[in-house]
Amino acid sequence: MVTAANRMICENLGRTDSGELTLAGQPLAALAREYGTPLYLYDEDRIRERCRTYLGAVKSSFGERARVLYASKAACFRRLYEIMREEGMGIDVVSSGEIYTALAAGYPLDNAYFHSNNKTDEDIEYAISSGVGCFVVDNEEELYAINRIAAERGKRQRVLLRITPGIDPHTYAAVATGKVDSKFGSAIETGQAREICALALSLPAISLMGFHCHVGSQVFDSEVYIRAAEVMLNFVKDMYTEYGFLAPELDIGGGFGVRYVEREPEINIPERIAEVAEFMKRHAEKLGIALPAVALEPGRSIVADAGLTLYTVGTVKRITGYKTYVSVDGGMADNPRYALYGSPYTILPVSRENPSETESVSVVGRCCESGDILQENVPLPRDIGRGELLACLTTGAYHYSMSSNYNKLPRPPIVMLSRGEHYLAVRRETLADLLAQDV
Amino acid sequence: MVTAANRMICENLGRTDSGELTLAGQPLAALAREYGTPLYLYDEDRIRERCRTYLGAVKSSFGERARVLYASKAACFRRLYEIMREEGMGIDVVSSGEIYTALAAGYPLDNAYFHSNNKTDEDIEYAISSGVGCFVVDNEEELYAINRIAAERGKRQRVLLRITPGIDPHTYAAVATGKVDSKFGSAIETGQAREICALALSLPAISLMGFHCHVGSQVFDSEVYIRAAEVMLNFVKDMYTEYGFLAPELDIGGGFGVRYVEREPEINIPERIAEVAEFMKRHAEKLGIALPAVALEPGRSIVADAGLTLYTVGTVKRITGYKTYVSVDGGMADNPRYALYGSPYTILPVSRENPSETESVSVVGRCCESGDILQENVPLPRDIGRGELLACLTTGAYHYSMSSNYNKLPRPPIVMLSRGEHYLAVRRETLADLLAQDV
Repeated sequence: MVTAANRMICENLGRTDSGELTLAGQPLAALAREYGTPLYLYDEDRIRERCRTYLGAVKSSFGERARVLYASKAACFRRLYEIMREEGMGIDVVSSGEIYTALAAGYPLDNAYFHSNNKTDEDIEYAISSGVGCFVVDNEEELYAINRIAAERGKRQRVLLRITPGIDPHTYAAVATGKVDSKFGSAIETGQAREICALALSLPAISLMGFHCHVGSQVFDSEVYIRAAEVMLNFVKDMYTEYGFLAPELDIGGGFGVRYVEREPEINIPERIAEVAEFMKRHAEKLGIALPAVALEPGRSIVADAGLTLYTVGTVKRITGYKTYVSVDGGMADNPRYALYGSPYTILPVSRENPSETESVSVVGRCCESGDILQENVPLPRDIGRGELLACLTTGAYHYSMSSNYNKLPRPPIVMLSRGEHYLAVRRETLADLLAQDV
Repeated sequence: MVTAANRMICENLGRTDSGELTLAGQPLAALAREYGTPLYLYDEDRIRERCRTYLGAVKSSFGERARVLYASKAACFRRLYEIMREEGMGIDVVSSGEIYTALAAGYPLDNAYFHSNNKTDEDIEYAISSGVGCFVVDNEEELYAINRIAAERGKRQRVLLRITPGIDPHTYAAVATGKVDSKFGSAIETGQAREICALALSLPAISLMGFHCHVGSQVFDSEVYIRAAEVMLNFVKDMYTEYGFLAPELDIGGGFGVRYVEREPEINIPERIAEVAEFMKRHAEKLGIALPAVALEPGRSIVADAGLTLYTVGTVKRITGYKTYVSVDGGMADNPRYALYGSPYTILPVSRENPSETESVSVVGRCCESGDILQENVPLPRDIGRGELLACLTTGAYHYSMSSNYNKLPRPPIVMLSRGEHYLAVRRETLADLLAQDV
């Protein structure tokens, strides 16, 4: 029998009677034996539940026209787009590669929104010919290119314009994208947002549907969305006043945080969305405009806590008077986020709950690089040793998608867990795969 | 006619009469047209010249028994190992993937040294059965595993022991590996180095050849090597006194710096090696021991300035009162080093020399991530625009090897330039390649 473990950071984690860690009710050691380690696992039912939570929340708060677009860059593989299709989710894609993957999954591209600060002409051609529903246009150059290419194909392309509302979400610099000083979008403050709106309205093969903004990542309350929504609704009103264009759609981006460690809060998504909706309805009423159809773009908060990575411990090194290093058979090649951002993670032993004696260790990877660290100050059993399994929690977002072959390490497979079953979605790379492009 | 450009950071760069940037004497625009961008280029003749410089320097300073091992993790693909084989270089490998690649190149594995802080049993089995010449053993667990697996195969495996001399090279934390508090090796200070030496001498299937240390990366003078060599030679003497074991080999690692930007010095490798050799000979004499055969492990300084990445400019965004962002068609997926370490780079326009008016811009990538920056404060022509080519210099090390498919971007090809010719060594990934592991 599986019981919920003490103080687990996500409800899909548990322990068996014998203390073995479970994800989606499935004990992890057998999965490691069957598929090997390092191993990316996804709780498919959790992904579906998060999709339904978001879809239910936006529809009950904003009405039936509201959309939820899964931000594919968090995790992009064919099976995931099949799940998005089945759940009726829209998707946000950022490259021809993501569009290609969605097509391979039979995903209806009409529900895809194409982002990127720098779409090449080839990307634009590919997206238009694939029938991508909407472009989120970053800048005027791109708008001209879409207009030209759509016109050549006798199409009128729906677009949103990416606008920077000038909101600093107070998250760390690398994920703060709503500020004016950003590589993304056109700023309201500088007048550039107004200019691109006028341009979009003037181009014959462009069908302007509204505006988009994104304020950042790992945001835990609704206040930053409310501030951004206020700025964006004022902009909607201004464009109505100035050009008679009342935006049918307003996409307020993604960014709701997920819980990597116990000290981070768990977000009640429906409540936060309801707060934002309440404000937006009131503010639209105050401005005397109809509220546009609202879209949200969660990525991390759809997939992150559905994911978990299993590692096998190798070398355990106790440096007398200094520190203990516990090495695993993965590292920055399958998870570069500590190396990139110093991201926090919860790492647990798989086979035992609440060991009597723990020691604070550095969990490090197998790459020949001092910075190849998964996490510092991890409490692990004092007698942990070679061959024992560790689980790094909350690895569903920006792990597989950011993985590399650094040190010529094959990338791990992705195994999906669903209703007590498990199956391979992405197979492990072989050594031969590593040379597939060598001519 | 190609003339050397003013203030170029490496002598293999130049400009044609019309001002076009060249690498290895070859104008770059035609290469971009033929192979597309982003594009990794390597000056093969420069790689060969660096190998010969190192080999000549160690043999003239240390004698014929000295070795140079190319640290493969800097850049690992089949063609590069063919070049290493042809140049008579040893190699340092860190994984089964690197061993597999070397085998595919017909590289004689007897000249390979196998590093890693965490070799799995599978790695050890694969390396021994592939005939890897020498293991650089990180720790006691690994030593036992090698002894067991070699014994099973009726072999005696040559090994060096990785020792941490307790030297802080004053480079940044992520690349400082000679300190006692490190995931690598056994420290002299704590007595663990002595213990692993005694163990190695006692195991029947282990043939101890000597010791290894590595003090860090981007080191520009010989002083840190001299300090490390002093500690290591003292250790060699101590092990001789204590166990009667006089190490035949001493590997003092890699780490000589390369010039990413003009403010960094150019190293005279033969002079620096001669300084280290002079000290080591003198110190060995003072200790009354024969100097072991010395090995060096350059990686970055063999390949970094042989490499260059070509990008095509996309969006140029001038944010009034803030900053100008110049986007290119690559970014952190093909070069994560600015995102990881804030590494400096020199970025030049390909088609024009000394433009009259420049502007300081941020060169950013195309990934949907604010941290996707290649370099800040780059002087570029004020009228730079969509379609123009940019060259990021000194990208031969830790670019291809650290590249990812983040944002589902295909990885760039590698094109080699040699004696006025060019050829493909690694082809560009296709969209289909991105789904090769999806089942």
